[in-house]
Amino acid sequence: MSLFRTLSKRYFSTTKPLHHFPSLTLLSRFSSTTDSTAPVRYAALGPTKPHEKPRVVVLGTGWAGCRFMKGLDSRIYDIVCVSPRNHMVFTPLLASTCVGTLEFRSVAEPIARIQPAISNEPGSFFFLANCTGINADKHEVQCETVTEGTQTLEPWKFTVSYDKLVIALGAQPTTFGIHGVHEHAIFLREVYHAQEIRRKLLLNLMMSEVPGISEEEKKRLLHCVIVGGGPTGVEFSGELSDFIMRDVRQRYAHVKDYIHVTLIEANEILSSFDVRLRQYATNQLTKSGVRLVRGIVKDVEEKKIILNDGTEVPYGLLVWSTGVGPSPIIHSLDLPKSPGGRIGIDEWLRVPSVQDIFSIGDCCGFVESTGKPTLPALAQVAERQGKYLAGLLNKVGKVNGGHANSMKDLDLGGQFVYKHLGSMATVGSYKALVDLRQNKEAKGLSLAGFTSWIVWRSAYLTRVISWRNRFYVAINWATTFVFGRDISRI
Amino acid sequence: MSLFRTLSKRYFSTTKPLHHFPSLTLLSRFSSTTDSTAPVRYAALGPTKPHEKPRVVVLGTGWAGCRFMKGLDSRIYDIVCVSPRNHMVFTPLLASTCVGTLEFRSVAEPIARIQPAISNEPGSFFFLANCTGINADKHEVQCETVTEGTQTLEPWKFTVSYDKLVIALGAQPTTFGIHGVHEHAIFLREVYHAQEIRRKLLLNLMMSEVPGISEEEKKRLLHCVIVGGGPTGVEFSGELSDFIMRDVRQRYAHVKDYIHVTLIEANEILSSFDVRLRQYATNQLTKSGVRLVRGIVKDVEEKKIILNDGTEVPYGLLVWSTGVGPSPIIHSLDLPKSPGGRIGIDEWLRVPSVQDIFSIGDCCGFVESTGKPTLPALAQVAERQGKYLAGLLNKVGKVNGGHANSMKDLDLGGQFVYKHLGSMATVGSYKALVDLRQNKEAKGLSLAGFTSWIVWRSAYLTRVISWRNRFYVAINWATTFVFGRDISRI
Repeated sequence: MSLFRTLSKRYFSTTKPLHHFPSLTLLSRFSSTTDSTAPVRYAALGPTKPHEKPRVVVLGTGWAGCRFMKGLDSRIYDIVCVSPRNHMVFTPLLASTCVGTLEFRSVAEPIARIQPAISNEPGSFFFLANCTGINADKHEVQCETVTEGTQTLEPWKFTVSYDKLVIALGAQPTTFGIHGVHEHAIFLREVYHAQEIRRKLLLNLMMSEVPGISEEEKKRLLHCVIVGGGPTGVEFSGELSDFIMRDVRQRYAHVKDYIHVTLIEANEILSSFDVRLRQYATNQLTKSGVRLVRGIVKDVEEKKIILNDGTEVPYGLLVWSTGVGPSPIIHSLDLPKSPGGRIGIDEWLRVPSVQDIFSIGDCCGFVESTGKPTLPALAQVAERQGKYLAGLLNKVGKVNGGHANSMKDLDLGGQFVYKHLGSMATVGSYKALVDLRQNKEAKGLSLAGFTSWIVWRSAYLTRVISWRNRFYVAINWATTFVFGRDISRI
Repeated sequence: MSLFRTLSKRYFSTTKPLHHFPSLTLLSRFSSTTDSTAPVRYAALGPTKPHEKPRVVVLGTGWAGCRFMKGLDSRIYDIVCVSPRNHMVFTPLLASTCVGTLEFRSVAEPIARIQPAISNEPGSFFFLANCTGINADKHEVQCETVTEGTQTLEPWKFTVSYDKLVIALGAQPTTFGIHGVHEHAIFLREVYHAQEIRRKLLLNLMMSEVPGISEEEKKRLLHCVIVGGGPTGVEFSGELSDFIMRDVRQRYAHVKDYIHVTLIEANEILSSFDVRLRQYATNQLTKSGVRLVRGIVKDVEEKKIILNDGTEVPYGLLVWSTGVGPSPIIHSLDLPKSPGGRIGIDEWLRVPSVQDIFSIGDCCGFVESTGKPTLPALAQVAERQGKYLAGLLNKVGKVNGGHANSMKDLDLGGQFVYKHLGSMATVGSYKALVDLRQNKEAKGLSLAGFTSWIVWRSAYLTRVISWRNRFYVAINWATTFVFGRDISRI
């Protein structure tokens, strides 16, 4: 009876009609609220009723998931998003935040700003949690809350039933099994990575000035090493050299001659770009003082990395950006896979052999039977897939195909087709590369230099999702130009 | 010989004449740079030579220390600042950052922006370190580096010799010895406090929406309790209620009826303000939904506080702001003290009975023999003292009194006189209090309402130190007004 009272109170304390509400069922509760040592609680957002809006559950808040949620019609569907972070990161501009060219919040977009239904529709929710499993037969996702940051709450498990499930869990950085990467290197994929890089860089600069530091340690602390010459690695190197040339010289004059940047890449830097652009990037980075080293990392220790040829490279800051691969949760899901271990999808982004499950973004790839190649792990692929799938589900929902197991005989319309729009990367010193070829072999426009940099900035400024952040990115750029970068270590 | 080579290399790698350089002496070194288990290193910035610029060492980067450094003439003195943070916090606006009305960086001012000499004069430095002791006879400060944030550096000790020493170490929050305050409550004095409050508040809001949370826990998580009804506690309560009324209602519609704010104060709120203003603040806060409780906290537990009368108050967020008192380092220094345990100073802010030591800000108070009362721990007191002392030392330095033990017979000019300009506090909902009386008993202008709020905002905007931050504060206010507060939990 007490359970019933709790639920009724929850429902009657609002003014909306009852049938709009999700079927929230407390399956069982073993804990009392004042006892933090209590065992696991278990609760669920149960299946929707036929007269309720169908529920789309989205796993992940990256480019794919967010673009999908943005496009999904909240008049047709309730939207439930499960993710360990409540914001999307505008990844192409993340490297700029590490040195203060942009502020962290300017590149973070809260989900509630992307899809307002999440915060104010009675049946739509955002759950700060990780997905731990999927039960395709029961149309159910298993989750566990992320309570990191509080001592008074133990994480607990719960399940969410779905009518449609969209897996957009992204990928994780590859380390090629190299020992010590996870312990000592910093990746550059989340805002907290950029925060860590910024704090460490400023700490190393300050420590280098204190009496008692040896020449050798000073050199080590101020040696910034980036492993991986893709766009992220190159853009971060460029930002770092801008920071050094403009801000370190002025703000850390005592140690300005000690700071150096090394970019280590096993093959070519920016391998997907036109050869002329690659050459331009190489020249430009070298001119800005970035040392380009061709090498393969064998081992990462606390204060140095060891290359395949035995060279030891001492470092004070190590940033790792050698691409991405499937994450453990993707491996563990009992779903069809694409070559390479991503979640398998067909031409309509459906996961074959199960009902009502879709996958988009870096975590998915076409199954072999489609004859299509796996698309690169790029923001533009993820975004295009999210947009396509939102359109598809909106269409399906309008003809009553929104509820579970009701989509079988519907015409899904055109398949997803990806058309590459080109690539861009900045290399620092107000220079950038723009490669508008559709693929590596095709011919097409490619540009490098200041004009490209203007194109790069304008293009990204218009891609930033909210007006608020677009405004802040522009303001941050302007103040960096006028006042230099902020060096408070907060 | 190797020591000599290291030093000469250091000196000759720059283009400035040798005699401008500080006497950096490595007293002894026991560690090798690649061995993190090595024992303590010991190094020093030795005494200045008579032909060198005299060195002023400043301990602390609060209002007093920063205003002092800003005013000190870097053509006369080398400035060495020792502090565990490399920025000043514009404390009157810190409460606004907890809910995203302002951004953290808008209220943090890097020292290098306040006194550029610190970053580019060869003999001026900023050392990220704590002061651990003072040897007044040897004119020497003992320090230890703050290396929190890196695993590859053990903290080490070093000494800095001074010609003049300015102690501006501030104060620490008082807890009245109440058990559990340090463990469970958050203070509101540093940027990282505001960051912690913001992250916790957003986490609690998100956790309250997840299936499996009980009604009781939801109420607890969303109960924000503030202990202490001074300006900080009141302003934070006001900001919180603004955040709830505007942003929580819109962004966390599912739980908006659960969030509550309670302000606990043992006596009167805003006791230093005019009685009419106090009454206005009480009404305004109550109208905004803040529950005002008169009570004394007896004990703080993980999930609840216990009042003197036995009442238990469960909380999800606990902010503690009951004033400040001397910190352990102040207690430990073997220097004259004022009544109340602050560092004793005379009318010229000198510490009596020792040579060349001054103290300003919350850490100092007039010695009994001056017959002057201890000034309140306010930003305006600290700032005025910093300004006065900079003027005094500039004057002394111009007549060759800058070096150690050379100030004895100089005329120091006028004594420091404090004139209170009045107090301000905002109470949320675009309302504020402005009390322009010179003290509690005096008569004078006092205002409350929207006009005061305009005065409050304008006054603080003009007090923000750098143009960069002044610009950002204005921009933050404007975007909060237009777009609401940012809720990304980064």
